Amino acid sequence: MHTARRRAPWHKGEGPVKLYTFWRSLATYRVRVALRLKGVAVETVNVDLLQGDQHRGDYLDVNPQKVIPALVLDDGGLPLFQSMAILEYLEEVYPNPPLLPADARGRARVRGLSQIVVSDSHPLSVPRVRNFLTQRFNFDETQLNTWIAHWQTEALRALEAHLSRDPATGRYCHGDSLTLADICLASQAVAAGFFKLDLAPYPTVARIAAACFAQDAFAREHPLRQPGAPATLAH
Amino acid sequence: MHTARRRAPWHKGEGPVKLYTFWRSLATYRVRVALRLKGVAVETVNVDLLQGDQHRGDYLDVNPQKVIPALVLDDGGLPLFQSMAILEYLEEVYPNPPLLPADARGRARVRGLSQIVVSDSHPLSVPRVRNFLTQRFNFDETQLNTWIAHWQTEALRALEAHLSRDPATGRYCHGDSLTLADICLASQAVAAGFFKLDLAPYPTVARIAAACFAQDAFAREHPLRQPGAPATLAH
Repeated sequence: MHTARRRAPWHKGEGPVKLYTFWRSLATYRVRVALRLKGVAVETVNVDLLQGDQHRGDYLDVNPQKVIPALVLDDGGLPLFQSMAILEYLEEVYPNPPLLPADARGRARVRGLSQIVVSDSHPLSVPRVRNFLTQRFNFDETQLNTWIAHWQTEALRALEAHLSRDPATGRYCHGDSLTLADICLASQAVAAGFFKLDLAPYPTVARIAAACFAQDAFAREHPLRQPGAPATLAH
Repeated sequence: MHTARRRAPWHKGEGPVKLYTFWRSLATYRVRVALRLKGVAVETVNVDLLQGDQHRGDYLDVNPQKVIPALVLDDGGLPLFQSMAILEYLEEVYPNPPLLPADARGRARVRGLSQIVVSDSHPLSVPRVRNFLTQRFNFDETQLNTWIAHWQTEALRALEAHLSRDPATGRYCHGDSLTLADICLASQAVAAGFFKLDLAPYPTVARIAAACFAQDAFAREHPLRQPGAPATLAH
């Protein structure tokens, strides 16, 4: 595992944290975007999921679930785990800019949109699932692509349906300010790029994703701009 | 869809809500337990997932993602969706008894444990996934059982590892009071029962699950005690 220290201009001095990350991890992308939006500096530790770093002993001590992200605080306690839990933590501890609406109903909507991605789409296409399908059930590349495209498409359809029917949708998923839902939607859009899915049938998703990627935090933390990312993708 | 009104003794008069539910749905079980713990009365509407009610037009208007739960508030707005989003909403609007710890790190831990179930285990074994594996990839019952057991086991191992190593674990997942993590753990334990997985290799999980099921809310809302549930299970 390789360690790199990130510094200014986005370090506002809230105290260091350490993030276990990998260029391709969409869950970690979500956390990186939130950290950058909130101006929180992190030391990053690379966990190469494609090389199996997550199964090695030193990482098992960090997160025995063998997944990333994991966020180490400076209080000496055990690392935080699971991207949504970390996003909620960051929102509580670094409230500016807010990434949840001020009202309970709005927060429920933002969390619901987020969970469509975090629970019902992303966990079905992660490396451990792809590996199990190919190694245990002998899925070939065509079958694997069918599997991935199906669940990605289901999530995109669900997001589009919820966003397009609700007047609460604005420039972003919920009104005209960024929320956790936009971070999750952006990670879904990155996945669509990885798996070569066209966003055109989902115009509201595509519009909001474009608005996100026009923002510095989303663009600079994009998986393909991270150390170790390939120049071209062959999933 | 069948409608039934639930009444006292657990109605404390916070105003009616309507929950779309199904006996077998573990995501809805989580919401029902929280509603009962907080003494919130709900009207329930049955959505028979095994009969495909979730794909019918009247339910698509409720939740275009075609999944349950969905929670209708009495403010005339669109239904809330996704179990974790609904749990967080209930926690905010009905704060007693609290189901999240008082400190940010504790909340992050409880949410992280919850997401191991809600994101990384449950969505891999739901009816839509089982149906896709059997209908599109011709999985037979043995293959399907292998698939389900693998992801259930991964989640149980992850929960056990996180719970057993952390002194924050108490009578329940986080200290000696119930939290959202216990609700999620209990739903994972119900799934283990559905799929005939032994909890003995996960003694902390098994101990906490037993403590939960000894509580009235968890016992009375158990999937096998709901209308429509079979006397014996043949998944």
